[in-house]
Order: sequence, then structure tokens, then C-alpha cells
Amino acid sequence: MQFTAAQLAEFLDGIVFGDEGVQVDHLCKIEEGGPRGLSFLANPQYTPYIYRTQASVVIVSKDFQPDQPISATLIAVDDPYQSFARLLEHYDQTRPNRTGIEQPVSIDPSASIGEDAYIGAFAYIGRNVQIGRNARIHPQVFIGDNVRIGDEVQIYPGVRIYHDTVIGNHVTLHAGVVLGGDGFGFAPNQTDSYNKVAQIGNVVVEDGVEIGANSTIDRATLGSTILRKGVKLDNLIQIAHNVEIGENTVMAAQSGVAGSTKIGANCMIGGQVGIVGHITIGNRVRIAAQSGVGQSLPDGAVVQGSPAFDFKAYQRAYVYFRKLPQWMRGFTANPDTSTPK
Amino acid sequence: MQFTAAQLAEFLDGIVFGDEGVQVDHLCKIEEGGPRGLSFLANPQYTPYIYRTQASVVIVSKDFQPDQPISATLIAVDDPYQSFARLLEHYDQTRPNRTGIEQPVSIDPSASIGEDAYIGAFAYIGRNVQIGRNARIHPQVFIGDNVRIGDEVQIYPGVRIYHDTVIGNHVTLHAGVVLGGDGFGFAPNQTDSYNKVAQIGNVVVEDGVEIGANSTIDRATLGSTILRKGVKLDNLIQIAHNVEIGENTVMAAQSGVAGSTKIGANCMIGGQVGIVGHITIGNRVRIAAQSGVGQSLPDGAVVQGSPAFDFKAYQRAYVYFRKLPQWMRGFTANPDTSTPK
Amino acid sequence: MQFTAAQLAEFLDGIVFGDEGVQVDHLCKIEEGGPRGLSFLANPQYTPYIYRTQASVVIVSKDFQPDQPISATLIAVDDPYQSFARLLEHYDQTRPNRTGIEQPVSIDPSASIGEDAYIGAFAYIGRNVQIGRNARIHPQVFIGDNVRIGDEVQIYPGVRIYHDTVIGNHVTLHAGVVLGGDGFGFAPNQTDSYNKVAQIGNVVVEDGVEIGANSTIDRATLGSTILRKGVKLDNLIQIAHNVEIGENTVMAAQSGVAGSTKIGANCMIGGQVGIVGHITIGNRVRIAAQSGVGQSLPDGAVVQGSPAFDFKAYQRAYVYFRKLPQWMRGFTANPDTSTPK
Repeated sequence: MQFTAAQLAEFLDGIVFGDEGVQVDHLCKIEEGGPRGLSFLANPQYTPYIYRTQASVVIVSKDFQPDQPISATLIAVDDPYQSFARLLEHYDQTRPNRTGIEQPVSIDPSASIGEDAYIGAFAYIGRNVQIGRNARIHPQVFIGDNVRIGDEVQIYPGVRIYHDTVIGNHVTLHAGVVLGGDGFGFAPNQTDSYNKVAQIGNVVVEDGVEIGANSTIDRATLGSTILRKGVKLDNLIQIAHNVEIGENTVMAAQSGVAGSTKIGANCMIGGQVGIVGHITIGNRVRIAAQSGVGQSLPDGAVVQGSPAFDFKAYQRAYVYFRKLPQWMRGFTANPDTSTPK
Repeated sequence: MQFTAAQLAEFLDGIVFGDEGVQVDHLCKIEEGGPRGLSFLANPQYTPYIYRTQASVVIVSKDFQPDQPISATLIAVDDPYQSFARLLEHYDQTRPNRTGIEQPVSIDPSASIGEDAYIGAFAYIGRNVQIGRNARIHPQVFIGDNVRIGDEVQIYPGVRIYHDTVIGNHVTLHAGVVLGGDGFGFAPNQTDSYNKVAQIGNVVVEDGVEIGANSTIDRATLGSTILRKGVKLDNLIQIAHNVEIGENTVMAAQSGVAGSTKIGANCMIGGQVGIVGHITIGNRVRIAAQSGVGQSLPDGAVVQGSPAFDFKAYQRAYVYFRKLPQWMRGFTANPDTSTPK
Repeated sequence: MQFTAAQLAEFLDGIVFGDEGVQVDHLCKIEEGGPRGLSFLANPQYTPYIYRTQASVVIVSKDFQPDQPISATLIAVDDPYQSFARLLEHYDQTRPNRTGIEQPVSIDPSASIGEDAYIGAFAYIGRNVQIGRNARIHPQVFIGDNVRIGDEVQIYPGVRIYHDTVIGNHVTLHAGVVLGGDGFGFAPNQTDSYNKVAQIGNVVVEDGVEIGANSTIDRATLGSTILRKGVKLDNLIQIAHNVEIGENTVMAAQSGVAGSTKIGANCMIGGQVGIVGHITIGNRVRIAAQSGVGQSLPDGAVVQGSPAFDFKAYQRAYVYFRKLPQWMRGFTANPDTSTPK
């Protein structure tokens, strides 16, 4: 890529302050920027860098008021982060795409594959599979029997999709994701061991979902494990059988949800959170990292702790937890008389 | 599938109440049941649904006493959940199985493969590998040199089995499982960095074990990391080198066990539990989710917390933890005089 | 292998006590040793075993003073663990190596592969990839476009390396590792859903790094996610975009680091630790297992808890946490009057 500040300003609907003709050829961080670099300033914490960055052009907010001289040319826009994200996207799309069906692959004759699909080498596509338009099935992917996949999906190398899974449009699955493994269902028997409970349901992943590397979503015992539209899961997440996650809920890495729990829409769930089975989490719930949620939560709840309760109450209780040694030593100046048995 | 209530009752050794001739053609949840659906009632919490379910047939306990009219035909059995599990199993087995050896595969000429095995495309089978009867080695599996595998195993796509691993009969390994990666062994050296300690032991997985997707079981430094008969591991579990897990112990997702720890039989270990290395956990121990076990535990212990201690004591302590702010504010009404330094 | 005690003593620069001609043919644990076995004693906890082991030869410290008769031949060395590690290494290297390029593989004509490389079947190597000397690329590995890999690497089956990743010399990646998946970057939009932020940076893995099975290292949004020389990561670890981990830092299994955090050199991070984004951890920091680090830490800090604070202070506070029920019951003998509202 190579653009002038003037061209960028037009593309981003921004206003240039400085040299309209200066050229940039790469994107960079403001703290590391060099000549011909294009950066941005969105987080006020980074403001000091704008006075010493070597980047040639910096995208700033229309509200930004410099209080020192700046050597970079500025482009003022309404939302600098969003503008920069557009440029990242633009840059990312310049990578050459593969097309067509590489060899060797194993595609069952009963499978149907949409127009302009890319199927990488060593991919395996089972019986009665349906794949939509512009699908990008990278090398070494496994797609089991009767799987249905929508349009414009990105399925990265080594994803495993068990039979009967249903995937919508614009879904992204990162490397090593497993969809549709058996739910963890075992019934104790008379010999102190367990009988497996067959898991005959499936996994449904709706439009716009993205799932991070090596995450695992189990198939339902009966019915479906469901990720609703726009759900975003980070890496190494575990979703058990019959869980349902509401629209646009976001989960950070290494979190897990146990069987049959329903999570609402627009929740934000931190990393390494655990949520027990058979409960209901409302909409717009926020759960702090490493929390363990043991009971249902109403809409808008904000919680922390293991077991989790109100976030602010947890923070306060933890402050006192830290002070316990100091406190208790005070009360036990004469432990023989004041300590309860 | 298509059965009458009478046929099902005979199969399940149950008694029909209602229309013996009514037909069902699918299994369903009682709360979502529709015409021609077959459901069950085991958990009393779901009893209200039986009075309004649209399922045609519901399997119930012989002890069940309705207190309102029910439109579904009932089949009364001794254990409705187990009866339903038998039907799930039956249904699951109607899926068409693949057979034979697909192409391309890479099988070393020195490998020996039992009767009626299925080997999926892109599987890799190393030197001196032995695989038993009726094995199902799905596509894209890797089996290293000298691995021995028993009869009737299910090894799902993308499983990686390093050299020298020994696997029993009736074992199920879900997609992405890694058996036999190097234990995490490094010895600090004089230059403030680490020398790798070679890991020359192996992994032994006994009969009837099931391991969930993307779990990792490391090979022993010397000797074996061992999962005893009937162990059930959920997804994304980490078992370090030289660990031994006793018969029929069950671990929920995202738990981890550090090196050389021995866990007894018939334990139940919750999700996201961590267990330190070099300790011994007794038989029938129960560990609450997210606990961190830092020392050996006797038979029958029930623990929670990080570090973990007696479950009930943890629950009680946590109740008081939540009350700390309220309490301490009470004691510090006049903080200048009552607060210990 | 087959050696006499005298040969081993020469190899290890040790002194024989006992029969110089006794032969050994395998390595074993001291507590399980049998005839012709070679074991070692480093941890004093295992001293009692030396008086009853059946191993033919035991490597001991030059400082070791037996207080009972010992049937095994002893070899006294400066550091028995390191001596034994050398033998493990030696033994491990006797395993026959594969060489050459197996078929089928998919290697782009523009890729360059160094001398004496091994490329296993079903591997996929993209455009402009450069791989160094003596690389061992095991079966079913995926290497995306423009990846650069150094000399003497071990890349185990099913590793996925996205485009633009840079890997140094003597790096080991275990099965199922994913390098370079997209960082978890989403910007909320006006419709209450999220726009993906393209991740155009890469992952850099320096010399001597080892990464455990199924761990995931995300690519940077801009710039690089970096693992410095000698970093050792255990299994199922998550490293988010733009994280940097300093030289020789070690992380145990199932830990995670959120975006843009910088970790210093020579840190020791326990299992299941979570570290928030955008903070700085100093050098030689130690973090106890299951801790949650929520703020920057200076050099040499030792912390525990969620959120984490000073390790000893945590241990003390936790002792009092366990005593809370006993304490508070004492103070509330008459709860109606003494409990604050």
C-alpha cells in the first residue's frame, strides 16, 4: 500500500492538518512509528507519544487539541480507532487469497459446495455436507456427515466439525476448534463405574460468530447447543452440551460453561471464568475474570468471586480479607481469653 | 426409527398407560416435545412439563403418580433416565458407520491393524503400531511409532498419539486430544536458562477410558503416566508427566493435575480445578470446581477453595467473607482507637 | 543401550563404588528399579529407597553417606540429577529419526527448505516459507505463507502456524499448538454488536523456546506478539495479542495472559494463572498457581490470590479466612445487639 495524507483523508472523511502530500506505506503503533508510517491516537494515555512519534501521519480525533508542536501530519476524524480499524481491515484484505480446490482432498460425492469456495489440501468433507458461497475451508479441516455451513465462512486449518453441526453465514473458526464432540454425559451404574449416555443432539452456530483457537463446543444430548448471532469466543473456551449463549455475548479466553446453562445477550465474560450447569444468566451481565458463577443471575448483574457475587461487594470484602491478619492480631492480644473455641 | 408405544414398552420392560398403538419417530426433551416425539421424566423439577408436553410418549418412573390429566401415553419403567439412555444409544448406533481404509493414508508396513478396522483419510500410522479389532481411526489422526491400541476404540479426527503410548479396549479419544507430549521438565543451568530433561516414559490409557476434545496427557519422564480403567476426562484437561488417575475417577473440563500426583479411584473432580504435583489424593474424594488442591487428601475428603480445605468449612468461611465489610465497619465506628496498627 | 558401571562412570566423570563390571540396559525410578536397571538419587526424600532398590546401579551425589548396606553399585557424581538427565537425553536420541520428505505433502514451489529437513506426510507448507537446517516438521503440520523458521526445530504433528510467523532456532512446538491466530479484537458498534478489528501483526518465537501441546499464541494487532529466548510454556496456555514474554520465563499449564501485557525475564508463573491486559510484570517475578494478576508488578515480586498480592500476606490472610466462622461466632454470641446492620 502507498497513500498520501490527502487520499487517506478522503477515504476516512477526515481533515488534514499539515503536509497533504506526505506518503505512508505501512501501519504502525504511535510509540514505535517511523518514517512513512501511519498511526492513530485514540486512548488519551498515549497522548505524550504524539509529540515525539516519527510516524509520518497520525489519525486523531476532531476534538484533539495539541499543546506542543507535532512533526507528523494529522488527519482529524470522528472516531480515530474506528478509522484505523477500517485501514487495518483494508490492509488485511490485500493478502492474496487462495482459490479453488487443492489436492489431495477427500470430498464425499454427496457433498455440495457453493461458488467460489476454497478447499485446502488434506481437508475431509463427509456425506451430505452443504457449504455456501465464498467459503474458505483451509487445509486439514474435518467436516463430518450432514454438516451445513453458510456463506462467507473462514474455517482455519485443523478445525474439526462433527456430524450434524449447523453453521451460519460470516462465521470464523480458528485453528483447532472442535465443534460437536460428545457432551460429557455418564450415568453411574451398579458396578461403581459409568455408562456413557449417547449424545444425539448437535451444535448450532449462528451468523457472525467467531470462535478462537482450540476452543471446544460439545454437541447436545438432545436438541442443540447454540451460539446465537454475533457471539465472540476467545481461545481455549469450553462450552458444554445443551448450553445456549445469547446474541453478541463475548467471552474471554479459557472460560467454561457447564451443561444446559442459558446465557443471555450482550454479556461480557472475563477470562478463566467458570459457570455451573443448569442455571440462567440474564442479558448484559458482566462477570469478572476467574469468577465462578454458581447460581442464576438477573439482567445487568455485575459479579466477581468464586462463588461470584456483586462485583463491588466482592471488591470491598477482598480489601478486608487482605487486612484480616492485622485485624485479628489486634483482637487476640490476649488470645487465651478472647479467642472463641 | 419408528416404534409404537407397545414395542418400546417391550424393549424397555415397561408398562403402557394410554394408547399402545401411538407411534413415535424421534427423541425429544419433555419441555420441547411435539407430535410423534418420545421423551422421559426423571428429574422431579421437570414434572410440570408432563401435563402440557406435546410429546406422544413419555417414559416415567413406576412410582410416578400424576395429579392432573396427561395427554401423552406413558411407559412406566424402573429407571426412566437409564431407559432413555438406552434409546439414545440405540438411536446413535443407527448412524451409518464408515468401514475399510480410505485413501490417502500413510501406514507403515510394519504396523498391524486388526479386523474390521476403519482408517480415515490422511491418517498417519507409524512403525510397529498395533491396532485391535473394530478400531475406528477417524481422518487426520496421528499415531506414532510403537503405539499399541486395543479393540473397539474410537479415535476421533485430529487426535495425536506420540510414540510408545499404550491404549486399552473400548477407549474413546475426542478430536484434538494429545497423548504423550513431553512432560514439562527443565533443569535450571548456570546461565540462568534451562536445559530440557528428556522424557523417555510413556502414557498408558486403560480400558473404558474416555477423553474429551483438546485434552493433553503428557508422557512420563521415566515409567508411565497412567489413566486407570473407566476414567472419564472432559475437554481441555491437562494431565502432567507421571500422574496416575485411579479407576472410574471423573474430571470436569479445564482441570489440571501437575506432575507425579496420584489420584485414587471413584473421585469426582469439578471443572477448572488445579492439583499440585507430588501429592496423593485418596479414593472417593470430591473436589469443588475451581479449587486448588495443595496437599494430599485422605479417602472420602470433600474440599473447596484455593488452597482447598473441607467443603463445608469453606462454604461457612465464604459466608463470613461476604459479610466482612459490614462487620469491620461495625468494629471501626471509631477507627482511630479500635484499629490495630 | 548396554553399559557397564565403569563405562558410565567415565561418561559421567564419576567414581564407582561396588562392582565396576555390572551391566545395565535401561533407566528406571529408584523406587521401581529392577535388575540391570540404572537409577539415581537426587531428592533426599527418596533416600530410604536406595537401601532396598533392585536397580543394579544408582547415581548418587559425591556427598552421599550411606548409613546401611546397599546392594547396588553406586556412581558418585557432582550433580546426580544433571548426570541422569544427560543419560535420559542420550537414551532419547537413540530413537530412530525419520528423514526426507514423505508423501503426500503440499509444499508451495516458492518455499525454501534447509538441508536434512524431515517433512512428514500431510504437511502443508505455504508460499515463501523459509525453513532452516535439520528441521523436523512432523506429519499434518500447517505452515502458512511467509513463515520463517530457523534451524534444528521440532514441530510436532498438527501444529498450525499462521502466515507471517517468525520462529528461531532450536524451537520445539508440541502437537496442536496454534501460533498466529487472530487476536481477540472487536470494536462495539451502534447496533449493539461488534465489528472485528483486523489483526495484521504477527508472532515472533525466539531461539530455544518450547511450547506445550494445544497452547495458543495470538498474532498482534500491529507489530508482534513475542516470546523471547528460552521461554518455556506448558500445555493449554493462552497468550493474547501483543503480549511480550521475557527471556527464560517459565509458565505452567493452563495459564493465560491478556492483550499487550509485558512480562519480564526469568519469571516463574504457576498453573492456571490469569494476567490481565496492558500491565507490566518485572523480572524474576513468581506467581502462585491460580492467581489472578490485576496490576503491574515490580522485579522480584512474589504474589498469590485473585486479585494477587504479596504471597506471604496472602498465606496469612487465608489462615484467618479459614478461621472466620469460629471467630465471628464468638463475636456474635448475642447477634441481636452486636451485629452491625
